[in-house]
Amino acid sequence: MSQQLRIRILDELEKLVLIDPHTHIDPHAPASTTLADIMGYHYYTELAHSAGLPRAKIEEPGLDPKEKVGRLITKLGELENTIQLDWLLEMCREFFDFTDERITTENWESLYDRAVEKMSQPDWEDQVLKQSGLEQVFLTNDFDDPLEGFDSSRYVPCLRTDDLVFHLHKPETQQRLAQASGQEPYDARSLVIAIGRLFDHFTSHGARACAISLPPGFRPLSVESVSAEAVVQSLLSGRELTADEVRTASCFVFWTLAEMCAEYRLPFDLMIGVNRHVYEEGVYQGQDLFDMRSSLFEYRRLFNAFPQVIFPISVLAQTSNQELVSYSWIFPNVVTNGHWWYSNIPAYIELDCRSRLQAVPKTKQIGYYSDMYKLEFALPKFRMYRRILAGVLARDFVVERGWSEERSIELGRLVLRGNVETIFGVG
Amino acid sequence: MSQQLRIRILDELEKLVLIDPHTHIDPHAPASTTLADIMGYHYYTELAHSAGLPRAKIEEPGLDPKEKVGRLITKLGELENTIQLDWLLEMCREFFDFTDERITTENWESLYDRAVEKMSQPDWEDQVLKQSGLEQVFLTNDFDDPLEGFDSSRYVPCLRTDDLVFHLHKPETQQRLAQASGQEPYDARSLVIAIGRLFDHFTSHGARACAISLPPGFRPLSVESVSAEAVVQSLLSGRELTADEVRTASCFVFWTLAEMCAEYRLPFDLMIGVNRHVYEEGVYQGQDLFDMRSSLFEYRRLFNAFPQVIFPISVLAQTSNQELVSYSWIFPNVVTNGHWWYSNIPAYIELDCRSRLQAVPKTKQIGYYSDMYKLEFALPKFRMYRRILAGVLARDFVVERGWSEERSIELGRLVLRGNVETIFGVG
Amino acid sequence: MSQQLRIRILDELEKLVLIDPHTHIDPHAPASTTLADIMGYHYYTELAHSAGLPRAKIEEPGLDPKEKVGRLITKLGELENTIQLDWLLEMCREFFDFTDERITTENWESLYDRAVEKMSQPDWEDQVLKQSGLEQVFLTNDFDDPLEGFDSSRYVPCLRTDDLVFHLHKPETQQRLAQASGQEPYDARSLVIAIGRLFDHFTSHGARACAISLPPGFRPLSVESVSAEAVVQSLLSGRELTADEVRTASCFVFWTLAEMCAEYRLPFDLMIGVNRHVYEEGVYQGQDLFDMRSSLFEYRRLFNAFPQVIFPISVLAQTSNQELVSYSWIFPNVVTNGHWWYSNIPAYIELDCRSRLQAVPKTKQIGYYSDMYKLEFALPKFRMYRRILAGVLARDFVVERGWSEERSIELGRLVLRGNVETIFGVG
Repeated sequence: MSQQLRIRILDELEKLVLIDPHTHIDPHAPASTTLADIMGYHYYTELAHSAGLPRAKIEEPGLDPKEKVGRLITKLGELENTIQLDWLLEMCREFFDFTDERITTENWESLYDRAVEKMSQPDWEDQVLKQSGLEQVFLTNDFDDPLEGFDSSRYVPCLRTDDLVFHLHKPETQQRLAQASGQEPYDARSLVIAIGRLFDHFTSHGARACAISLPPGFRPLSVESVSAEAVVQSLLSGRELTADEVRTASCFVFWTLAEMCAEYRLPFDLMIGVNRHVYEEGVYQGQDLFDMRSSLFEYRRLFNAFPQVIFPISVLAQTSNQELVSYSWIFPNVVTNGHWWYSNIPAYIELDCRSRLQAVPKTKQIGYYSDMYKLEFALPKFRMYRRILAGVLARDFVVERGWSEERSIELGRLVLRGNVETIFGVG
Repeated sequence: MSQQLRIRILDELEKLVLIDPHTHIDPHAPASTTLADIMGYHYYTELAHSAGLPRAKIEEPGLDPKEKVGRLITKLGELENTIQLDWLLEMCREFFDFTDERITTENWESLYDRAVEKMSQPDWEDQVLKQSGLEQVFLTNDFDDPLEGFDSSRYVPCLRTDDLVFHLHKPETQQRLAQASGQEPYDARSLVIAIGRLFDHFTSHGARACAISLPPGFRPLSVESVSAEAVVQSLLSGRELTADEVRTASCFVFWTLAEMCAEYRLPFDLMIGVNRHVYEEGVYQGQDLFDMRSSLFEYRRLFNAFPQVIFPISVLAQTSNQELVSYSWIFPNVVTNGHWWYSNIPAYIELDCRSRLQAVPKTKQIGYYSDMYKLEFALPKFRMYRRILAGVLARDFVVERGWSEERSIELGRLVLRGNVETIFGVG
Repeated sequence: MSQQLRIRILDELEKLVLIDPHTHIDPHAPASTTLADIMGYHYYTELAHSAGLPRAKIEEPGLDPKEKVGRLITKLGELENTIQLDWLLEMCREFFDFTDERITTENWESLYDRAVEKMSQPDWEDQVLKQSGLEQVFLTNDFDDPLEGFDSSRYVPCLRTDDLVFHLHKPETQQRLAQASGQEPYDARSLVIAIGRLFDHFTSHGARACAISLPPGFRPLSVESVSAEAVVQSLLSGRELTADEVRTASCFVFWTLAEMCAEYRLPFDLMIGVNRHVYEEGVYQGQDLFDMRSSLFEYRRLFNAFPQVIFPISVLAQTSNQELVSYSWIFPNVVTNGHWWYSNIPAYIELDCRSRLQAVPKTKQIGYYSDMYKLEFALPKFRMYRRILAGVLARDFVVERGWSEERSIELGRLVLRGNVETIFGVG
């Protein structure tokens, strides 16, 4: 295909103002205040650590932000090939007028200072959103988040439920749940009531999705309240559970969440495949990995039981993408969602994007989300995706199938923005 | 690579008249009579359903064909990106002089009527075959098919054996077997005799293959008649079997089929990886999916035990392709066969085609089959494959390895046609 | 991308003199003496057998080398598409002035004779190394190899440990160990001493790595000497072990090897995923395959327990590559290593190379090793890799990311050579 064609398509996609359907933005501090906020992102700390920087150097208590950045900079040369470093360079170029080829121990300080200066401008948050072409940002809120003090038309709440499903045996989780819901859970029925109150709270504050990340071995099974009763009571009374009972309790809570999603008409984002704390000595958030021996086949009962709930699904293992394509092709309520974490690199995005566009109804694809912790990341991450998407549209649609440019651009607009609006009811 | 090179190679591949080594054609009604025959193909009904068309609208009893097409048309816009819609458009352009960019609620009726007109021509079947460059078509025949009333030099019978291996516990299957074979099976020996008579019948009617689709978890094990005897007798007497006994019975029948393939010198087509009825409320034939956790390693005993039987193998999961390449590279009796179902999209065909051409002896690759239910599908499906194959030959052989165009085209001819002739003894 | 750009990059990569970090070279007979040495490589014998040449024809006792080659030649036409045949042709062109398009039954004899002539030149080994741009070659030595009689600055010893981990129950393995170590092992402690003596011997002779190939189902677990004691004593006294005990013994030896790697500061090459003797009637070394249901997740305890040991990892299944990328991205001590065996074909190398360069620190990637048995193979295999690498550098770095050519070439040099030097401490 001609590069000109691809660039023309990209130019059109770049004009689109976006809604980012999954991030970890703190709405009370959405933008960065120093480069340390950006380079503290686990992608950089874990890669620098992987390249040999000791965790103690990165996570030293009380470490000054500038000193932290200075330490990370020493490893950037070894990471320069990674796409993550490309994001960093693009942010520095776009936001901080950086023009050198590399960030080095020689030039980083002036970059750091320039960044602090720009970030301290009172409208920095708005500047970043504007320059990034972003108008709404989905959050990842703890279930006991008060959801107050921010503009929920800009920052859209989402109910994150990992703690409920996997950590309800912990006393502090139970206390948080009791406090947030005003309902002390002690059996299945009161637990369901407490969870329902969370949904009340979240939907009344504009929440647009329920979300959870799941380990590769998770098998969602329906558990009747009756048969779960004893296990739930044991759990809530603080008794030690067997591994089987832990699974039963997790399934009961998970299934309850799906029922609430049906009742409250919320999509249920499933992020499937992460094993937590695999590398025990890793940096913060740089300890998780996966096991590719996982299958959506384990989710068949869930998809069958809740035809009225939309499940936007992310898979961590790239090898799971074909299952995701096929399950979205067959199940009306299964939708492809972005390119997650270890699959979020161009070589895999390209293959996954192509297969989805070739086989999943165009209305059932959420092209991309940034997964960002700070607003500055949306620009380079979405641009990476837009470049790949433009290439796929140019090659697979214009060249191979004879589509007009405009028609292929329309398809691009749909997966980048239109589907986010219709699937989550925003925009 | 230059597009001109690829087009020149494609032009040569397009001239080739083909034998389609796997279809679901009904030889008594091979071509379509209305667009409903084409759009009733599960690819369209399941995708329309996935995009939101209720199953009841698609499968309403007594639904008029034109009305059915009209309902499906309302969803085509949402599917336009899929490669399956591309096949549909190509059929309409090639066979029904359709020239619009899209099929819409505005223009479909005239298309429908034009199609009916052309399909009602008495030589429509011959027209389609001629225009598609197709001279022989393999069938998928039930084991009790009388195989009469059609030209078996054009429509080549194949013995499909899923019912025998997986549904022999059903009384109607046993009755059908008794009737077809003239042998009431009641123990292992009489069951083997009955199955042997099916092979007599099929081979005397020109059958060229035995075929079966298998779930991802199937483990073919040799079961001695002696140890299977009690289980087989229970099965045939209608007693309920345990899960273990069901597996034993399936293995016994499967192994018997392999023995018959050896005796009757038939290739045994294995289509590995389908889970049936995963989406219980799906449309007809739109309920099956897969579990990627499957391995050809489970078939090692079979491949070792029957060196004289050729096993053309299709895998449903694209992630299984490398195993297929490697097992075909090592086992003389394992042969790669087409690009099946959920793997039959360009992004995956391209990668799988490249890896096979780079590592499997050229005589052990069956490039493609259409899997079609109606003759009109061969043209767009084989053309999709020919385009991909031409690209791979141009890039990987002419450009990367310096082959002459003619030599690369010869390789294309072999995988498209020559190997079908030698492996199945047809042409 | 422009082909000119790629060719310019390739030209620079071709100038690089390499260290081959994994081969099966016999340092006492490193180069071939006839074409039979080259075509006796299992890639050719197994592919010829796969294409129909009986094993008995290939492995006939006392078969004359020329006659053997003549028999294999009859099958070359059927293998001409494979990348392995491309290697063969390239060797013949580069080393033996072969200029025909194909090797045939007509022209092979003169080729054979020309090869014998060149191979009989006294400096043939040096010629091959020079022409191939190779200055050091890692070996694969049995644990009881005396490591004498060759130049270990050219041929670098590596301690191969499959026999110790998986075949220590065999009396001959125990005898070999006793002899090589001067320590008759009879319990856990004496076994550890014996293994330590092997490390003494190897490191004092310049060994640079410990290596092992592992089946897909292997789960490395730490076994305390105390709990292994009974099992190890049973093993060493020749008693029959249960399957569980066999696993315990393997784990104990494996863990001991990792401890020795830590003590002796040797990288521990893990080659993960091979099932031995799957095709029982296959030719020599042409019997092994794999099961893709394997995960690096099983190695998490090992990686956590030995942060001071570098684990260069090869995976047999291409579907395991993303796990390898991700585990190398997170664990400081995990390093990607080459493209092994069934994954060593361009379609897979390209995808795997791209993903590694996009996500793993550049200092943690060993680009390629030849795995060769005779020196002549380094040239075509490394050239295949260099061509692919040049394409990836041109497209993903120069075109997509705007890198200068020189910068992308530097990255190529690092993964081709620089990292071999730093990771193994050679060069």
